[in-house]
Amino acid sequence: MSTKELRDTEPVFSFPIRIYWEDTDAGGIVYYANYFKFFERTRTEWLRHLGVEQGSLLANEDSMFVVSQTDAKYHKPARIDDLLNITLHIKHMGQASITLVQTAWIQDKTVSDQRLLACESTVRLACVQQTSMRPSKIPLRVAELLSAKLSN
Amino acid sequence: MSTKELRDTEPVFSFPIRIYWEDTDAGGIVYYANYFKFFERTRTEWLRHLGVEQGSLLANEDSMFVVSQTDAKYHKPARIDDLLNITLHIKHMGQASITLVQTAWIQDKTVSDQRLLACESTVRLACVQQTSMRPSKIPLRVAELLSAKLSN
Amino acid sequence: MSTKELRDTEPVFSFPIRIYWEDTDAGGIVYYANYFKFFERTRTEWLRHLGVEQGSLLANEDSMFVVSQTDAKYHKPARIDDLLNITLHIKHMGQASITLVQTAWIQDKTVSDQRLLACESTVRLACVQQTSMRPSKIPLRVAELLSAKLSN
Amino acid sequence: MSTKELRDTEPVFSFPIRIYWEDTDAGGIVYYANYFKFFERTRTEWLRHLGVEQGSLLANEDSMFVVSQTDAKYHKPARIDDLLNITLHIKHMGQASITLVQTAWIQDKTVSDQRLLACESTVRLACVQQTSMRPSKIPLRVAELLSAKLSN
Repeated sequence: MSTKELRDTEPVFSFPIRIYWEDTDAGGIVYYANYFKFFERTRTEWLRHLGVEQGSLLANEDSMFVVSQTDAKYHKPARIDDLLNITLHIKHMGQASITLVQTAWIQDKTVSDQRLLACESTVRLACVQQTSMRPSKIPLRVAELLSAKLSN
Repeated sequence: MSTKELRDTEPVFSFPIRIYWEDTDAGGIVYYANYFKFFERTRTEWLRHLGVEQGSLLANEDSMFVVSQTDAKYHKPARIDDLLNITLHIKHMGQASITLVQTAWIQDKTVSDQRLLACESTVRLACVQQTSMRPSKIPLRVAELLSAKLSN
Repeated sequence: MSTKELRDTEPVFSFPIRIYWEDTDAGGIVYYANYFKFFERTRTEWLRHLGVEQGSLLANEDSMFVVSQTDAKYHKPARIDDLLNITLHIKHMGQASITLVQTAWIQDKTVSDQRLLACESTVRLACVQQTSMRPSKIPLRVAELLSAKLSN
Repeated sequence: MSTKELRDTEPVFSFPIRIYWEDTDAGGIVYYANYFKFFERTRTEWLRHLGVEQGSLLANEDSMFVVSQTDAKYHKPARIDDLLNITLHIKHMGQASITLVQTAWIQDKTVSDQRLLACESTVRLACVQQTSMRPSKIPLRVAELLSAKLSN
């Protein structure tokens, strides 16, 4: 399935993000790097929803997910007060990495089922041991929670 | 020329970036989205070096460059107190867009000619009219400054 | 009423803020400047709740609120995955400015009615015309919405 | 000596900060919280100039400076492309804390000895053990470097 086809299926998870002054720049639009913050917040909420708190993962298992690769295409700019809906699809799951497709949609303020594509991104997360920063298998408990989700 | 080959030629511009607390996260490394800030600072300093101030461009010509596409690969993580050298290569110049390759190198603190690859990125900048957010040709004065650089 | 006494009364508004990687630094705690983002998000949501969208205020009336003065005391550090509750009290309302007291509480994860004081702040907002950046009266419609709240 | 009198004496340290897109917001000016980043970068460069790298301090001595209190007054707004000069004065040095006065000046682009006051701040730094987050004496080596500076 292509990234675009994947994006049009039902997302595994979605999360609302409101745009504040801090997110915008003097061009009047959301600063491009900030979409990567929105995508990260959504991944974090997805993991929390599955029962994984990354702070505990780091403290108890010395494990963390780091971004090893990402890309983004920007379409319509989001602006202050906009409400975004960030979606998450799983593209690939490996033993030590996960690849996700994430999309930022601007919700129309007047027509609730209308939305505009702001930004779409693919992101590859690698699991590493924090102390060594070396790649490591995704902890079994986490892998099982993720796999259960995949087979749904 | 591939992106990798391009990256190994002499850059058009380079700029030093020091890592501060604000750039890092609780994983002990630079937060992934912040490299996009470093790349943007370097593009801004490159344009300033060519004689283009983006604030004036916006105020006087309603023109601004927005990122329409970007990607990044992360290699070695940078940490607090690291000194990065951000390089910039021109990959393609069109009438309404520029594509750059940018790389973040960690300077070795002890061996001055040693460096480690932290992150490499391709970024496509589109010129737009701010009022309409529609694509527009790069203003002639700017295009000439950029072209002069290219033919060097 | 002292700031501390004020803080212990029922807040005019409160807003939940989750701590993400982006909010923390390599010291393992929330970066001190980020509390000012949390306070600003909460003020923005308070104004939205009253019926004031700052984007519209800027676009239609050339008016915006800027921070003219602020202070903060930091108590217990917040960490990744913490859920903060940000409260807002009105200390003073003038014709061209508002002074608020805002507090960041860390919600205890196990005992729902327990909370720890992370940061408390006073902030003075001045209303300005964006074009001139000169102080101006708070637009009548906004002043009325704020006053209605005060007299409740 | 009052804060204002102190500010008009020769600073102990000063550091240039350029304003980029990331620093501004849709109001066209520097987002208020970002001055705290500029002040922090300047403190970090001051410590580095004295021979103290905070990353080493944390790794080798489990010590870090955290902000326990700060305030700021905002005067003229800084904008994209502005060059700020951030100054640092020592107001008080204790066994486990330092209080600094820091000021952000906008350099005039045409008249080099002209400057406009953007923001002034007082900040109290407390030394803590990271593991426990409890206050601790400033490590002797650091205290000596700071004191030497004071007696100059």
